[in-house]
Amino acid sequence: MTIWFDETFEGTRFGLKVTRTLYGAQSPYQRIDIFETEAMGRVMTLDDAFMTSERDEALYHELLVHPAMLGAASPRRVLVIGGGDGGTVREVLRHPCVEACVMIELDELVVRACQTHLPTIGTAWDDPRLDVRFADGIDYVKTSDEPPYDVILLDGTDPVGPGAVLFEHDFFAACKRMLVEGGVLALQSETPILLREAFLETQKKLSALFGAVAPYFGAVPLYPSGLWSWTFCSDTRDPLAPDGARAEALEPSLRWYNRDVHRAAFAQPSELRRALAAMHAR
Amino acid sequence: MTIWFDETFEGTRFGLKVTRTLYGAQSPYQRIDIFETEAMGRVMTLDDAFMTSERDEALYHELLVHPAMLGAASPRRVLVIGGGDGGTVREVLRHPCVEACVMIELDELVVRACQTHLPTIGTAWDDPRLDVRFADGIDYVKTSDEPPYDVILLDGTDPVGPGAVLFEHDFFAACKRMLVEGGVLALQSETPILLREAFLETQKKLSALFGAVAPYFGAVPLYPSGLWSWTFCSDTRDPLAPDGARAEALEPSLRWYNRDVHRAAFAQPSELRRALAAMHAR
Repeated sequence: MTIWFDETFEGTRFGLKVTRTLYGAQSPYQRIDIFETEAMGRVMTLDDAFMTSERDEALYHELLVHPAMLGAASPRRVLVIGGGDGGTVREVLRHPCVEACVMIELDELVVRACQTHLPTIGTAWDDPRLDVRFADGIDYVKTSDEPPYDVILLDGTDPVGPGAVLFEHDFFAACKRMLVEGGVLALQSETPILLREAFLETQKKLSALFGAVAPYFGAVPLYPSGLWSWTFCSDTRDPLAPDGARAEALEPSLRWYNRDVHRAAFAQPSELRRALAAMHAR
Repeated sequence: MTIWFDETFEGTRFGLKVTRTLYGAQSPYQRIDIFETEAMGRVMTLDDAFMTSERDEALYHELLVHPAMLGAASPRRVLVIGGGDGGTVREVLRHPCVEACVMIELDELVVRACQTHLPTIGTAWDDPRLDVRFADGIDYVKTSDEPPYDVILLDGTDPVGPGAVLFEHDFFAACKRMLVEGGVLALQSETPILLREAFLETQKKLSALFGAVAPYFGAVPLYPSGLWSWTFCSDTRDPLAPDGARAEALEPSLRWYNRDVHRAAFAQPSELRRALAAMHAR
């Protein structure tokens, strides 16, 4: 008997052949499953949506983290919201300039399950610079009186459904409140193929808050359509000017990101360039 | 009742919700199906593998065609092998310098079905410069005494299964025989994620024949993993130097390709760069 795990999404479905189930639980927030697959190694789903796989997690995490980290000026304080599998903080902590990385994750059970069953992804849990807090990231950025951050990374779920609040103007404005002047905010911003309108709306909201808002693109085979977007936001930093010396030191340890990939990610296919221009004009 | 069409591939499956079936037949060579989907418009499958969709066909066809056409010096004669849906010759014939485009497709029934049911893809069937022949492309390049071509485009199926012969050294060598000096060969060269070894083997075979062999990458949501590769081969032409004047005239009519996308496509993610270096060293 073959067991498939399928995620259905906007008239598509993507499935992986499961070779072993490792974990399944209902947290107060969501259903969590972790299993082994033939094609993608170990995989985690939340509420039946693929979140991360051993095979392609670097394609997602390295693209979320390094453009922002190399675009900011020697970031010392970094805030991650979400990212329960630990891949995002692992990439942040590769940067020796980082002194403190605060990670705010709502669902402690996700972190505990990933620590046990996805140890190849979360390899930095014991880093003394890491401060993991199980709390509501929205409350935190709206109410915290802690010092602001040099970089903020949003590693949340989809802008449709329960994660929608992580794509609202008030939340983005609160994030900006927690950024130093010249800080960089980066976030995953959905598939521009299957959720084009949500992608464009996010760009529009961010453009009302930041001087420079630059979407960028890359492959994530596990995610719907396989083409994903992230967005780099700053008032002063140039998304196309990563710190060369820091990048050179970093690149040998990475699987996917390098400065060529960085620049390539910001190329806008014509149909997206036109849609962005039309969105800004309306 | 929901009808899904799924393609299974190397431990993955990708499915589309079908809203209407339009065509189904068995040709002497393969099973052909065309149907409408919610997510991707009209779609064609051959032997249950997704071949093309209205929604993302430009992402595939424009990337196969324009790097080679703009990399060659004003190509006048172009050969297309495969490409029964008509998307590849449509892109070739956008170039006003083209005087003759010969398309060799094995399966006449694919072309007839696409002419009827995918009219938005094959919009250039009536172009007087187009010469469609229903024949074996391998025989043609091995035995033809027609004049050589400025550009040859291979738009075949997968290097595993019945299409494998289109990825063999003898076939590539025969293609080179049919190229003018300084001509350009471009081909689809598979997903570097799920068929990494086939991708690398193809690079190695081509590197034994051409002075410059440059793989390039882009998103094709319909194809396994969503990340596809093509390869630019030439003895003398620089894959990163598309003709600027011709590109500028062409770009307004395209959905996806532009010179930024061209350059971006040739960026090599680190894990692929390392695999290519190891392949060349072995």
